[in-house]
Amino acid sequence: MARPYRQKNCPVARTLDMIGERWTILLLRDLFFHGPRRFQDFQESLSGVAPNTLSARLKSMEAHDLIVGRSYSEHPPRLEYHLTEKGKSLGPVLKALRDWGQRHH
Amino acid sequence: MARPYRQKNCPVARTLDMIGERWTILLLRDLFFHGPRRFQDFQESLSGVAPNTLSARLKSMEAHDLIVGRSYSEHPPRLEYHLTEKGKSLGPVLKALRDWGQRHH
Repeated sequence: MARPYRQKNCPVARTLDMIGERWTILLLRDLFFHGPRRFQDFQESLSGVAPNTLSARLKSMEAHDLIVGRSYSEHPPRLEYHLTEKGKSLGPVLKALRDWGQRHH
Repeated sequence: MARPYRQKNCPVARTLDMIGERWTILLLRDLFFHGPRRFQDFQESLSGVAPNTLSARLKSMEAHDLIVGRSYSEHPPRLEYHLTEKGKSLGPVLKALRDWGQRHH
């Protein structure tokens, strides 16, 4: 897995190695503040994201055990993404980012 | 200024438009946890960063009023970077990122 920040002993860098890629935090935001989402929900919310980038981010988040995809249709196969407990534990990060954005227009 | 996340009404996206570029959070981390830093301090800390990228990030952070460069030598001209009050107010974001990284190895 890519570790773009490569600083093993720094906990901030370690967190960024999991959630520091562009869009990942906004995907977590959607799941955290709005609940389970489908691929097309993310596409609508993140209007600038390329589908292959979105797909890669979701795969990486699943590999890091932050989200899990659950099937809601078999024909055609469709997934809905949920936060895991580990993903939910990023709540304080998302709230801190939101609070700061609310104070600084 | 670049606004890669382009979601005016979302406070999380607004925060990421200021601090979401790669390396920016690690530069803030160095300033927040270790105090004022010089260009070469950042280069040593962020061993993977290209000098022109580092320079661009520092300029962007100054433009967003997160840091300020103060001269500590005139010949040759040298700057030391400090957090502004606005930059210091990102403390809860940095602490949340650090706390999560400490809990998830």
